[in-house]
Amino acid sequence: MPESPDARSAADPARLRQAIESDVIRAEGGVRRALAAAVREAVRSGRLTPGTRLPSSRRLADDLGLARNTVANAYGDLVAEGWLTARGGSGTLVTDSVITRPAPGRSAAEPSGDTCYDLIPGSPDLTAFPRAAWLKATRRALAAAPDAAFGYGDPRGRPELRAALADHLAGARGVYTSPEHILICAGVSHGLRILSEVLAGRRARSVAVESYGPDRHRGLLAAVGLETLPLSFDPHGTDPVPPQGTDAVLLTPAHQFPLGTTLQRDRRTAVVDWARRTGGLVLDDDYDGEFQFDHRSVGALQALAPDSVVYLGTASKTLVPGLRLAWMALPPALAEEAVAAKGQIDTCEVLSQLTMAEFITSGAYGRHVRAARRRYRDRRESLVAALTQHAPHVHVTGTAAGLHTVLGLPPGYEQQVVQSATRRGLKVAGLSRYRHAQSPHVMGDALVVGYGTPSDAAWPQALSALMGILS
Amino acid sequence: MPESPDARSAADPARLRQAIESDVIRAEGGVRRALAAAVREAVRSGRLTPGTRLPSSRRLADDLGLARNTVANAYGDLVAEGWLTARGGSGTLVTDSVITRPAPGRSAAEPSGDTCYDLIPGSPDLTAFPRAAWLKATRRALAAAPDAAFGYGDPRGRPELRAALADHLAGARGVYTSPEHILICAGVSHGLRILSEVLAGRRARSVAVESYGPDRHRGLLAAVGLETLPLSFDPHGTDPVPPQGTDAVLLTPAHQFPLGTTLQRDRRTAVVDWARRTGGLVLDDDYDGEFQFDHRSVGALQALAPDSVVYLGTASKTLVPGLRLAWMALPPALAEEAVAAKGQIDTCEVLSQLTMAEFITSGAYGRHVRAARRRYRDRRESLVAALTQHAPHVHVTGTAAGLHTVLGLPPGYEQQVVQSATRRGLKVAGLSRYRHAQSPHVMGDALVVGYGTPSDAAWPQALSALMGILS
Repeated sequence: MPESPDARSAADPARLRQAIESDVIRAEGGVRRALAAAVREAVRSGRLTPGTRLPSSRRLADDLGLARNTVANAYGDLVAEGWLTARGGSGTLVTDSVITRPAPGRSAAEPSGDTCYDLIPGSPDLTAFPRAAWLKATRRALAAAPDAAFGYGDPRGRPELRAALADHLAGARGVYTSPEHILICAGVSHGLRILSEVLAGRRARSVAVESYGPDRHRGLLAAVGLETLPLSFDPHGTDPVPPQGTDAVLLTPAHQFPLGTTLQRDRRTAVVDWARRTGGLVLDDDYDGEFQFDHRSVGALQALAPDSVVYLGTASKTLVPGLRLAWMALPPALAEEAVAAKGQIDTCEVLSQLTMAEFITSGAYGRHVRAARRRYRDRRESLVAALTQHAPHVHVTGTAAGLHTVLGLPPGYEQQVVQSATRRGLKVAGLSRYRHAQSPHVMGDALVVGYGTPSDAAWPQALSALMGILS
Repeated sequence: MPESPDARSAADPARLRQAIESDVIRAEGGVRRALAAAVREAVRSGRLTPGTRLPSSRRLADDLGLARNTVANAYGDLVAEGWLTARGGSGTLVTDSVITRPAPGRSAAEPSGDTCYDLIPGSPDLTAFPRAAWLKATRRALAAAPDAAFGYGDPRGRPELRAALADHLAGARGVYTSPEHILICAGVSHGLRILSEVLAGRRARSVAVESYGPDRHRGLLAAVGLETLPLSFDPHGTDPVPPQGTDAVLLTPAHQFPLGTTLQRDRRTAVVDWARRTGGLVLDDDYDGEFQFDHRSVGALQALAPDSVVYLGTASKTLVPGLRLAWMALPPALAEEAVAAKGQIDTCEVLSQLTMAEFITSGAYGRHVRAARRRYRDRRESLVAALTQHAPHVHVTGTAAGLHTVLGLPPGYEQQVVQSATRRGLKVAGLSRYRHAQSPHVMGDALVVGYGTPSDAAWPQALSALMGILS
């Protein structure tokens, strides 16, 4: 999207008022809802660009002649939905990764700013989706599928896929489960929504989360009224044992997002012991567990306590997000509630499930993951090498794994680097945007660089553009 | 866990080899992963009990004919995961705190698939899904799709599909909309859940529904706290104008489910006037609108008042439910809220959307729908003919349309017929099961016969089985 010069500074209240006033008057369903809708629309249309700081709720309330609570509540709604990010000290910003609607005439789903390099973490290289192999698997799946597969199905998902996943996950990630305890869902967010409803149904009140993590996951928990408590951490990583009375813990044990640390073995056993002792639940978000580059490959935490840990995996990183395929390995005692929370029928598209099952059992998935692992390992190594040469003052932290890494910056440089990168058509994320507002810790300035997103062709330019900003 | 006498001594390499060899050979993703997985499984199953000392990596490597590093690395992985404990001098032991549990069975069978004839309404003939044509459309869609299509997408759904639907629905159902006001969802239930959340967010309290209808739809509305008020009806069909203060009306105007009546013209205008007058919302559930058999085809109610009526359509009847593809044409003023209720990203699988767009624009969808219309019309006619001959006392009600019809029975016969049918392996639904508990009306005894569900091959037997019960 074209960046107006002032896009990164605080939004001018006059412009903002102009952008939303008519909507506020026109819209139905209360001023709070209308204000939220208007800001949403301003973000979608690009009138408020990602990273823009919004006026304080007090200031905007004065400007619009609204009650301050109304504005604060509307902001709260938008944070929970992921449109805005609440940044303790520095106010409320438009979320960097938010999907904006392109200008009229352009197709609605293509992200804006095609010409710039996107290093925001969270997406794999979309150009590497193995279309031919996927089509071949689709042909086989269509030929083999029983007619009944195309009807209203078991809410757990297709048995072919659950069986293939039970085997694959046992070998690849050490997950201990069986097909009847696997629940297919339309992405990890869908899985977390299901688990949130189960926890809320059990009258749970609080879920401990990592001090740095995806705002959207915290929002999903908050949406059903669960309090998210930030876990403390030290140089060795997160201390996963939550405070007394916590109902569940959401962790990324294999590769902490975004910090990139791996949960140490004594802490793995400690959190599992906590769960066994208190009956608490551990959510093992293994979002990129198949991408570990060094000699060590740490398996899923779930295997240590299948009765206390929910394993969450996804095809959004190993293949592409568009498949909307993710899976949970559920503790047997939780399975019935989770399936009921998903619904009476399977809401996930059947043919992609059958195709994924064929893709896995034929070995095509394993081959694709190994090739992707090499691709991303090479990118990470070229990034490290480039930094050593061009920006020795920038240090890489985190284990060699996944689709992103953290680059530590000299104090006070984070916002400046993010802004100058954006001005030069390079989308990067500052570490601070991932911080839980109540976190006792504040990490030093850093960038979270997603090296998985660009195509192989674009990566060298993206890398040198990044070096141009860091050196 | 019973301790075998030698549990505390070193594990016999022969037994261990036997336990893991096949896994090592079979498993995919590298010998090291497989070895780790096999040892994990041996610990879980109790073949290796807590405290057992493992052979040195050198000895096991010799035994299995593996490189020593491979074994050492696998041991290292398992130590990091907490399965094993490295005791400098005394070697590597199975961690004492590890809790083992026998593996549960691995049956993920279909929900009880018996061989009887299914005449429960709601499902099309699954054997008629055009697999070859769908594969062809998938190939084209995969070849044409931009890379960005496989990323996190616009929550409204793929633009290709929304554009194709806007055109198709205008021609086939007279729907008046534009691509940006179409919202793709994973079935009509998903659409109704989204609309329920929007209504609840607007502080709506009650939704009027037809006195006879799907229990599941009433349940979706009730789930967010909306009261469902049964509409009255007379021999001419439903009176769609709801009581004072109702926030919305859910109707099946083209072909009432299950009664099969068509909403009369004056009543169509009456409910639209109500909506315009009160600001209420009309939900036009056009679940089988493309299957009208007689010369005239009643278009969508939505076209009368696109600003007050939500149109809901689905591929679950024209193609198959397993595609989880449905669509809503939204009043512009409702679009923003509905999109937000769906989420920040598209939760619907992308490839099936692209394939459906290709299927529609290539004309394959139109051909398939026309063929299906002929199939179901023929089945209905054969049903009517068979009744005239074998059960003249049973009268068919409702217009010639859709996948089901209602058979009026002599008073007091409904339960008896349903039960004797079930005993003879014929699944049929009594009309009473669709009645709203608070409905002021009680229809006479009747069967709702879904003639769409059996295959072409099974239909004749299903029909004669039904006659055997009715005559």
